Amino acid sequence: VRVIGTGLIGGSLGLALTAAGVDVQVEDLSPGTLALAVELGVGHVPGPEDPAPQLVVVAAPPDVTAQVVAQALREHPLAMVVDVASVKTTVLEDLAALQDAGELTPGDLRRYIGAHPMAGREVSGVIAARADIFPGRPFVIVPHPDSETRGIQMLKAIATDLGSLPSIMDAATHDAAVAHVSHVPQVLSSLLASTLLDAEPQALNLVGQGLRDTTRIASSDPRLWVEILGANAEAIGPVLESARDRLDAVIDALALVKAPKEGQDDRSSEAGPGPRRTIAGLIADGNQGVARIPGKHGGGTDSFVTVQVLVPDRPGELGRLLTEMGVIGVNLEEIRLEHSIGQKTGVAHIAVELGREALLTRELERRGWTVAGTDGPVS
Amino acid sequence: VRVIGTGLIGGSLGLALTAAGVDVQVEDLSPGTLALAVELGVGHVPGPEDPAPQLVVVAAPPDVTAQVVAQALREHPLAMVVDVASVKTTVLEDLAALQDAGELTPGDLRRYIGAHPMAGREVSGVIAARADIFPGRPFVIVPHPDSETRGIQMLKAIATDLGSLPSIMDAATHDAAVAHVSHVPQVLSSLLASTLLDAEPQALNLVGQGLRDTTRIASSDPRLWVEILGANAEAIGPVLESARDRLDAVIDALALVKAPKEGQDDRSSEAGPGPRRTIAGLIADGNQGVARIPGKHGGGTDSFVTVQVLVPDRPGELGRLLTEMGVIGVNLEEIRLEHSIGQKTGVAHIAVELGREALLTRELERRGWTVAGTDGPVS
Repeated sequence: VRVIGTGLIGGSLGLALTAAGVDVQVEDLSPGTLALAVELGVGHVPGPEDPAPQLVVVAAPPDVTAQVVAQALREHPLAMVVDVASVKTTVLEDLAALQDAGELTPGDLRRYIGAHPMAGREVSGVIAARADIFPGRPFVIVPHPDSETRGIQMLKAIATDLGSLPSIMDAATHDAAVAHVSHVPQVLSSLLASTLLDAEPQALNLVGQGLRDTTRIASSDPRLWVEILGANAEAIGPVLESARDRLDAVIDALALVKAPKEGQDDRSSEAGPGPRRTIAGLIADGNQGVARIPGKHGGGTDSFVTVQVLVPDRPGELGRLLTEMGVIGVNLEEIRLEHSIGQKTGVAHIAVELGREALLTRELERRGWTVAGTDGPVS
Repeated sequence: VRVIGTGLIGGSLGLALTAAGVDVQVEDLSPGTLALAVELGVGHVPGPEDPAPQLVVVAAPPDVTAQVVAQALREHPLAMVVDVASVKTTVLEDLAALQDAGELTPGDLRRYIGAHPMAGREVSGVIAARADIFPGRPFVIVPHPDSETRGIQMLKAIATDLGSLPSIMDAATHDAAVAHVSHVPQVLSSLLASTLLDAEPQALNLVGQGLRDTTRIASSDPRLWVEILGANAEAIGPVLESARDRLDAVIDALALVKAPKEGQDDRSSEAGPGPRRTIAGLIADGNQGVARIPGKHGGGTDSFVTVQVLVPDRPGELGRLLTEMGVIGVNLEEIRLEHSIGQKTGVAHIAVELGREALLTRELERRGWTVAGTDGPVS
């Protein structure tokens, strides 16, 4: 395998494939990055004696991906060439344009296939590369109608070697999917976080876990995201527009609720649903949207219950709690530790399988823990 | 203390005050709820021999709060009366209207003061009440210009008894603050979650931790939130409008980026900043907004670094990890366990104090753990 571009994803792929026993050749435009990648064990720089690669992985920045893919297709006339850009339609369009310009033949393009290993991190560069960012993460294989089937087989084998979860989608389906699960969430989280710039300093002292969770991904890199959002503008646009229309409706509804005494009917009327129904409808649809998110191991969120346990803020206390959970024999599905400013006691939110919460609560309380409550599954 | 309305907050206050040695009298319109509250230990039903309360806490639904406060002011002519509704301006307005209608005197109103113990949960009712939801949470005291100062003293004492963090704000400042840190986040999280209703089923298989975090609060109760958002429409409206305007600008920018080949200049021009700058500006402002959120114990998010450690999905493994962290002597500031569908290994995101990450990484790796990476503090 030849990896072209040893940033976060290219570097991590090289590390993981090397660890899996694959011979990895590396290329990078920057000699410094390349030297660092070799030192980190991403792969080796190919010499004249090295065999021609069977698979070339292009992990270049999104705006030059198609150019690098085209060059790789010409330089390695027998290899399959795959790119790992996080938006796929634009790469296909750019390749089609290169074919129209005579820089590629239809035969070349049969050896191209797209992929998206969804293992990005909030950091970048080869120094952040890790062999183990792929296990359990989706690995989307994106063939175009003329892709040779050996490409799919190769990528399935690689995804399995990495411990990723391979799935196959066409480019448009992939781009619509990541618009929903990744790009629109990024825009709305950044939008929410940006509203905090207008908040009074004392307001920030009232922040709880809800706002922290909602804005965590808003820490992401602007340079990276302007490329990703720009490349997937086609798929993101309609989702954002429909969100904007709904936000407009909610703003109008709030203005009506504000002034119900001035003759506005507060309930639904011939003119359409009342403002309260508009607002409640948003929250209720949000409930349903969340319920569509699958839980761990493919189970729905229905399968888990969250038990809240008070944990003193001392080294080892949470460890003791979780060790005792192991003794009790209840497996932890997810955990989140909640803290507020100045608080010396945290609340561990421990998700366990539905039906295990009573045993866990009883046994923990017997061991002296304070169980602060239980939240049922989302209905 | 007399508690009127034994739902989640009233019930929890009763439990906590009783635990602190305060004599708590309880009232509720529903005899069933009242009986349950007494059985749970929230307080006792006052008889003719009981002393008059010094403080009456009104924990009624928001739409009847002012009525109940007014009645309490008339029935207990010596007591301070406090409400715990999560929006304060509307209560004051309603009380002023009752005064205009002759149902209250200015002297009565001097005995009214507002409060907002920010300890809500995603569940409701007295059965969810807990004495320990208050420690470490903000407890906002909201006097009006004519409130007697003994009210502030009483509430400060109660907040301290509960382990909460008292602060004092006027009603408008409080309502603007909760609009920013609670109400607008709820609207935008619900808005994001509602867009998932249009996603293809296979898109949901690509969901990662980012979307899960961003939509967690979208599980909240529509009935409760329609009241809260309606009551604070005045403060929420402008924040949502400014978010809507910015969303509009991003939608327009994405449409321009989509078609840069049709003569649109991609960079900034005399007509204003280019579309890429608009998009990058949103993400960058989001970075800055997140950086304003204080960390645990009042420290900024600058003070912590997140170390990612791989944790096999077996009972007791996370406990073993955290016990060993205790042995190493590095205190855990926050923890989040990340899992994807079908994944048998989780990634624990462990926030530790800046400067402790190298020691922790070295010592964990020596003990056989895989440290998958380190994320620096948000700059």
